[in-house]
Amino acid sequence: MAEKAWGGVFSEATDRRVEKFTESVSFDRRLYAQDIAGSIAHAQMLAKVGLITPGECQQIEHGLEEIRQDIEQGRFQFKVELEDIHMHIERALIDRLGDVGRKLHTARSRNDQVATDLRLYTRAAATRLIDGIDDLRRALVTQARRHVDTLMPGYTHLQRAQPVRVAHHLLAYDAMLERDRGRIRDAAQRADICPLGSGALAGTTLPIDRAQVAAALGFHGVTHNSLDAVGDRDFAIELVAAIALAQAHLSRLGEELVLWTTAEFGFVRIGEAYCSGSSLMPQKMNPDLAELLRGKVGRTVGAWVTLMTVVKGLPLAYNKDLQETQEPFYDAVETARQVLAVMPGLIEGLEFDVARMRAAAEDPALGATDVAEELVRGGTPFRTAHEIVGKLVRRAEERRVSLRALDAADLAAIDPTLTPKLLEALDPARAVAARTVIGGPAPESVRRELDALEAELRALGLEL
Amino acid sequence: MAEKAWGGVFSEATDRRVEKFTESVSFDRRLYAQDIAGSIAHAQMLAKVGLITPGECQQIEHGLEEIRQDIEQGRFQFKVELEDIHMHIERALIDRLGDVGRKLHTARSRNDQVATDLRLYTRAAATRLIDGIDDLRRALVTQARRHVDTLMPGYTHLQRAQPVRVAHHLLAYDAMLERDRGRIRDAAQRADICPLGSGALAGTTLPIDRAQVAAALGFHGVTHNSLDAVGDRDFAIELVAAIALAQAHLSRLGEELVLWTTAEFGFVRIGEAYCSGSSLMPQKMNPDLAELLRGKVGRTVGAWVTLMTVVKGLPLAYNKDLQETQEPFYDAVETARQVLAVMPGLIEGLEFDVARMRAAAEDPALGATDVAEELVRGGTPFRTAHEIVGKLVRRAEERRVSLRALDAADLAAIDPTLTPKLLEALDPARAVAARTVIGGPAPESVRRELDALEAELRALGLEL
Amino acid sequence: MAEKAWGGVFSEATDRRVEKFTESVSFDRRLYAQDIAGSIAHAQMLAKVGLITPGECQQIEHGLEEIRQDIEQGRFQFKVELEDIHMHIERALIDRLGDVGRKLHTARSRNDQVATDLRLYTRAAATRLIDGIDDLRRALVTQARRHVDTLMPGYTHLQRAQPVRVAHHLLAYDAMLERDRGRIRDAAQRADICPLGSGALAGTTLPIDRAQVAAALGFHGVTHNSLDAVGDRDFAIELVAAIALAQAHLSRLGEELVLWTTAEFGFVRIGEAYCSGSSLMPQKMNPDLAELLRGKVGRTVGAWVTLMTVVKGLPLAYNKDLQETQEPFYDAVETARQVLAVMPGLIEGLEFDVARMRAAAEDPALGATDVAEELVRGGTPFRTAHEIVGKLVRRAEERRVSLRALDAADLAAIDPTLTPKLLEALDPARAVAARTVIGGPAPESVRRELDALEAELRALGLEL
Amino acid sequence: MAEKAWGGVFSEATDRRVEKFTESVSFDRRLYAQDIAGSIAHAQMLAKVGLITPGECQQIEHGLEEIRQDIEQGRFQFKVELEDIHMHIERALIDRLGDVGRKLHTARSRNDQVATDLRLYTRAAATRLIDGIDDLRRALVTQARRHVDTLMPGYTHLQRAQPVRVAHHLLAYDAMLERDRGRIRDAAQRADICPLGSGALAGTTLPIDRAQVAAALGFHGVTHNSLDAVGDRDFAIELVAAIALAQAHLSRLGEELVLWTTAEFGFVRIGEAYCSGSSLMPQKMNPDLAELLRGKVGRTVGAWVTLMTVVKGLPLAYNKDLQETQEPFYDAVETARQVLAVMPGLIEGLEFDVARMRAAAEDPALGATDVAEELVRGGTPFRTAHEIVGKLVRRAEERRVSLRALDAADLAAIDPTLTPKLLEALDPARAVAARTVIGGPAPESVRRELDALEAELRALGLEL
Repeated sequence: MAEKAWGGVFSEATDRRVEKFTESVSFDRRLYAQDIAGSIAHAQMLAKVGLITPGECQQIEHGLEEIRQDIEQGRFQFKVELEDIHMHIERALIDRLGDVGRKLHTARSRNDQVATDLRLYTRAAATRLIDGIDDLRRALVTQARRHVDTLMPGYTHLQRAQPVRVAHHLLAYDAMLERDRGRIRDAAQRADICPLGSGALAGTTLPIDRAQVAAALGFHGVTHNSLDAVGDRDFAIELVAAIALAQAHLSRLGEELVLWTTAEFGFVRIGEAYCSGSSLMPQKMNPDLAELLRGKVGRTVGAWVTLMTVVKGLPLAYNKDLQETQEPFYDAVETARQVLAVMPGLIEGLEFDVARMRAAAEDPALGATDVAEELVRGGTPFRTAHEIVGKLVRRAEERRVSLRALDAADLAAIDPTLTPKLLEALDPARAVAARTVIGGPAPESVRRELDALEAELRALGLEL
Repeated sequence: MAEKAWGGVFSEATDRRVEKFTESVSFDRRLYAQDIAGSIAHAQMLAKVGLITPGECQQIEHGLEEIRQDIEQGRFQFKVELEDIHMHIERALIDRLGDVGRKLHTARSRNDQVATDLRLYTRAAATRLIDGIDDLRRALVTQARRHVDTLMPGYTHLQRAQPVRVAHHLLAYDAMLERDRGRIRDAAQRADICPLGSGALAGTTLPIDRAQVAAALGFHGVTHNSLDAVGDRDFAIELVAAIALAQAHLSRLGEELVLWTTAEFGFVRIGEAYCSGSSLMPQKMNPDLAELLRGKVGRTVGAWVTLMTVVKGLPLAYNKDLQETQEPFYDAVETARQVLAVMPGLIEGLEFDVARMRAAAEDPALGATDVAEELVRGGTPFRTAHEIVGKLVRRAEERRVSLRALDAADLAAIDPTLTPKLLEALDPARAVAARTVIGGPAPESVRRELDALEAELRALGLEL
Repeated sequence: MAEKAWGGVFSEATDRRVEKFTESVSFDRRLYAQDIAGSIAHAQMLAKVGLITPGECQQIEHGLEEIRQDIEQGRFQFKVELEDIHMHIERALIDRLGDVGRKLHTARSRNDQVATDLRLYTRAAATRLIDGIDDLRRALVTQARRHVDTLMPGYTHLQRAQPVRVAHHLLAYDAMLERDRGRIRDAAQRADICPLGSGALAGTTLPIDRAQVAAALGFHGVTHNSLDAVGDRDFAIELVAAIALAQAHLSRLGEELVLWTTAEFGFVRIGEAYCSGSSLMPQKMNPDLAELLRGKVGRTVGAWVTLMTVVKGLPLAYNKDLQETQEPFYDAVETARQVLAVMPGLIEGLEFDVARMRAAAEDPALGATDVAEELVRGGTPFRTAHEIVGKLVRRAEERRVSLRALDAADLAAIDPTLTPKLLEALDPARAVAARTVIGGPAPESVRRELDALEAELRALGLEL
Repeated sequence: MAEKAWGGVFSEATDRRVEKFTESVSFDRRLYAQDIAGSIAHAQMLAKVGLITPGECQQIEHGLEEIRQDIEQGRFQFKVELEDIHMHIERALIDRLGDVGRKLHTARSRNDQVATDLRLYTRAAATRLIDGIDDLRRALVTQARRHVDTLMPGYTHLQRAQPVRVAHHLLAYDAMLERDRGRIRDAAQRADICPLGSGALAGTTLPIDRAQVAAALGFHGVTHNSLDAVGDRDFAIELVAAIALAQAHLSRLGEELVLWTTAEFGFVRIGEAYCSGSSLMPQKMNPDLAELLRGKVGRTVGAWVTLMTVVKGLPLAYNKDLQETQEPFYDAVETARQVLAVMPGLIEGLEFDVARMRAAAEDPALGATDVAEELVRGGTPFRTAHEIVGKLVRRAEERRVSLRALDAADLAAIDPTLTPKLLEALDPARAVAARTVIGGPAPESVRRELDALEAELRALGLEL
């Protein structure tokens, strides 16, 4: 059964259905570039320590480059019986170079090879995700800058709570994305050490130079336990957890866009290029994209669960179960990239209905806290002030008038010391403007925040 | 924007990246056969109630059949801008038939259409999964019949506990699979009602006949609330939960095969055609298939989580988020089918090392319970008997002899009434034979069980 | 170490922290009633087959009844070192009865004992959950009956789609709950077989009568494989999956209540007794209960994942990991019961703002499909009709008038054959009334459905 | 309804069942110390900015200290109707101080208060978890130091692969724990900013000093968006993800301990103080603790899923659903602490069967790779060498002899250039010794690693 690279010890061919069941090349072909880069670094090291000659090394490099081109130009043929991308590339090299090709796999195993490929993939994925996040942050900051003066109701429990401004609301998502960025960066940093040289599980008796390979591949160090290195998929799990949380944030934004585009809220219009229609109802323009933002967190939560279920209870070193960690990992990375690709355009194109938002923010009940704080300024203990204002709101409801429309008699009925002047605190613009606390919705607070964010994003090379 | 079926109301084209992000045809093309079957039944009903003419109906049927063939023969072209399989087929029909094709979507929405397609898919998937389970049960029963007389240690906590027989052990998996079968059948039955006619969410003002469509598609009834019917994916979630549990069972079998093929256990040999080798270590024959059985439960657990996360908190009727329920559903069904396809061959090919298993079963400590039960038969309260035998085991360990090798002095030291005759209970074959309780490992219990299972499987049409 | 029931073989005491770590009595004490019922049935069987005398059996029954009372009256002392509820009860019995108490554990193991207790718990839990579901259905049906004539907009993608009626909307939840009920009942039925007699894993050599025990405990049969029976927790997993799906349905209802009670929708008022306020904002009345309905699905999804992760890859028969299946199971059952306890009151107390809902339903865009179907009745192919009406909607938007306000010129500009009469189809009441399809929103469809549901609930013994 | 702190606006009492359903004090009482610390820092700030007098501040501080003592000494009464720990403490303060107590809640909301409490909890939890991890690392390093010279088989796919040493194997877990430590530290750092001052969602109009409060509580900064700050539970989710991964690592160790204590492996003995027995089988000593290590990852995976499901799709700022994030968070933290409390003792007490492990490592098949690498040193391309050795192994199997026992004829039959000298590479000790690569199993590699780890742990203050 020497058809397989490992066929020497076997006397029977692999069952065809088993080949199909156990193959990974249908998904790990994504790693071809990483695999070739890793193999080139490995070959150069083999040459340096004398396990192959410089000439052999050149032949191998050249052959691998050709294979890369074949793959990129769609000329490469993938076959289930060659199992994975590693075997495909090695076999193609042997087909080209004969015995020289047979030397590439010296002092290495697919176990440390795939671990290396996956770490390179992780590093590249993290970089692109961070770029995508920054681009989305740019879009949010741009919209926020446009809407520093647009008032809207802030909500808790989806009940109108206090007036805020649209810029302040949008920047809440920036705050989330900053944390997501940090988590992805931390994950990438932890991933950035090289396992090559760990062999199947116990290194090699051959005189390799792990540091050289790591340096050639741009890793900032090498792994320190070979048994761990070949069975470790922490980097994938950590990155998927970070992505899932980022998507949870975007699911919140998706939900808000769905709400805001309803007839009932009517706060925002999504550009038609970002909507879809109905096959039955001619009038419909649906916020499909926002709904998918909301829904797509599901697949990444599922991906993390898959990863955790797979690694649970595995004995040390490599087990075939680990193959099952690849697809959910790729799916999480690729889903996040797709989401991040459509988001900036969606955000930039939002058209806020400034008048409608302002009108909603002028609901006088939203000033109740301000009235209570006005009482506090006059010396009333807050808890007492809260109760007084609660009763005022109730009285307004009973009389079916606005809080602002309560008269002196109404106020006196609750507490004889109250006068209608108190209700001047109900002006939403004034109320928001007074919230100058760091992170609050006052114009100067928001502008200060925006200035800082714009500076940060420009420093990252983004154009605003 | 009339290029889209729903383009009338739109004045702007969909962004190309958004089309790519929101399309589903890359995965819902799987439903083409269901979609065409549903459309034919729908057209026949439209003809019957007079919304189209018999001639139009014939044209539609014929056109749909041609489209089916185009798809099956790889001649059909899929385009991201046509979104989903439903639009593809309708457009292809219109391309063929013009205005007659434009009539097919009368009194129907993609919302009830996809719900119908998915239920048809569920029904077919369940049938094939049950066939796969029965075929695996056949393999287990066949192996069990071969090994009714093969003793092995039974384990709890993976510590040797009491002797059992291989047949008994294998049939434990049959018991699990019977439950899995029941759950899948129940899920299929609950899925087996027709939502077509629910429209987008509120039916139609046209005089359709839902019962006819349901009957034509072989459903056993129709759904009773249109708002629920278009937003319901319970059938997918329930089937995925059933599949996940089945895969959890197979993960246990996978784990045991991994254990049993270790050098340390050495209980069984997996056929070479079901193993793989190592790219580095020439001696390796790895039980990859068993490991994947163990690992693959992860993706289905993840799929269920995805589904639940997606549907959580959705308002009634159709939301685009539901599109995200399809991929995990297909993945769960297809993974289970792949697993079930390779399992019977794997199980049939297992070669048990009868001598080694028997030797392990003869470990005298496995008879400790039998000795205690022997004391019970002599009138000792069980809890006291348990303690006495516990002390005997300890004494044997302290003396570093087998339990069977304890002598009269040893026994008397624990309890003066004990005699060496007591230790005759330590014969494993006798011990197993005495466990004649229903579901127990005695030969007649196991044979009775096997007879019943063989009869059941034969009644289902399987050959044994 | 004879302090422990299993201490005979041990020479060293268990580490105190380990006792605390491995104990289960802090949560499995919930099973005391099941455990005692199981022990009584077991003792009666032991007496019948002669393993204990009738007098001993009476003593045991009496002792167990006393222990039950001690537990129920808070007089029973739980101790970490006795591990679990089984050991607590056996020990208490031995403290009372001496050697007679030591006989209770004859021919039984904690492995089959806890499996029996858990199945009894499952059965009882399912019954109570079904009662809770039926009571919630009663509340929904009651509200629906009140609001057969209340029109509201139906939504897809949370965009107004077509008018429906409140009764129709509420009954969508009844449809979900019917399925939930079916799943719970199926789970209970599959759980309803008795594992007692399976021993630790391999039955017993003593002459027990499993059928008698099963009958005494009301099981409809016995398990058929002892190795499976002691390691099977399918019943818990299946019930938790069914509960999770039910809670997903309630999360949708929770979401809708949150939406409907916003200032923007304003469709419904939740009774004050079901709301909470804010510690800071005096005006707030928050729909906390509805939010928790939405959120609580999370813990049950998590519970199922825990269960699946725990059982993944376990070798046959009992493993200690299975202890970890209890807490998530209890949490899922108890959470569902709490939710179901508060729901009927919440639903019954909802006050719909009939006028506001009706006004929203009169949005003329909701009649677009009706106009298209009107064109179909006149012979236009549906897909063409859809496009025509889409253009009408666009024209109305461009002119910033209502669809109903389009004039003859507008219509003719789209298609010369159109006349303003066409727009009569825009009456929402008429449109809903015409949707007489089964499961649709026409008054007679909804009333027919309500009649059937009321009859069903009355047949179940509920008062309406 | 002034009984509730927010009762002013209400005219109806909360339903008792609803109170029970919505309360959180049964679990958030854990936060009492954080809540009191936060309140003291808040009061001091209020005094500094003049919102209360220094005398009032002193009274509040004193009152809060008394409440803390009442709670710690079990004298504090918790009542469902007071909802949460915040209301309990405020109410108790008002009961003591009257109007002065009513001033504490000035310029603060429960929304920013609970966010602050939870971040303080997170920080403290992370510190204790890191201490626990370091203590476990100490135990692993200690055992590793004892077993630098103990050979054992290394496994991949649970098939014997190549010889390694026990120290090397144990240190693989140290490598995992180092990463876990890093993730927990990163999570704690991201959590370490103060949200107090964010109010309910929009800060306050009162002139507070957020930086002072943050400094008093030891935070390294303040949050920068009030809408985000009150709705953010990222810190909990991130910490739970880190814990779950740590537990996945421990589940692998649990699995290995279960395997190694089987009769079949027989590699290690767990101290009796860390085992449990069977209620039925007198001979059993079960590795319950190791099994629970393996199983307990399930609850933390479930906890993370719960958290993610809960936050999915929530609109901005506080929603009551967030209450559901607390229990899974506490459970994850507390489970991890329990696990870490028992682990060091378990690891320190392991007794390895050095002779049995060494014997297993001497299995000559484990040297196959070394033979291939010997051929490589002689100039054979590795892939060819692999195939040759594969055939040697097959020949040995066919002849039913050990690889070491092949004779000159056997070798020549495979390849005429081979001589029996080649098989000298089969000495396991030599083979391991030659694997001097960084992270490999050679004695000097392992000792170098151990030296570094011991130095690191000593620098952290641990005694070795």
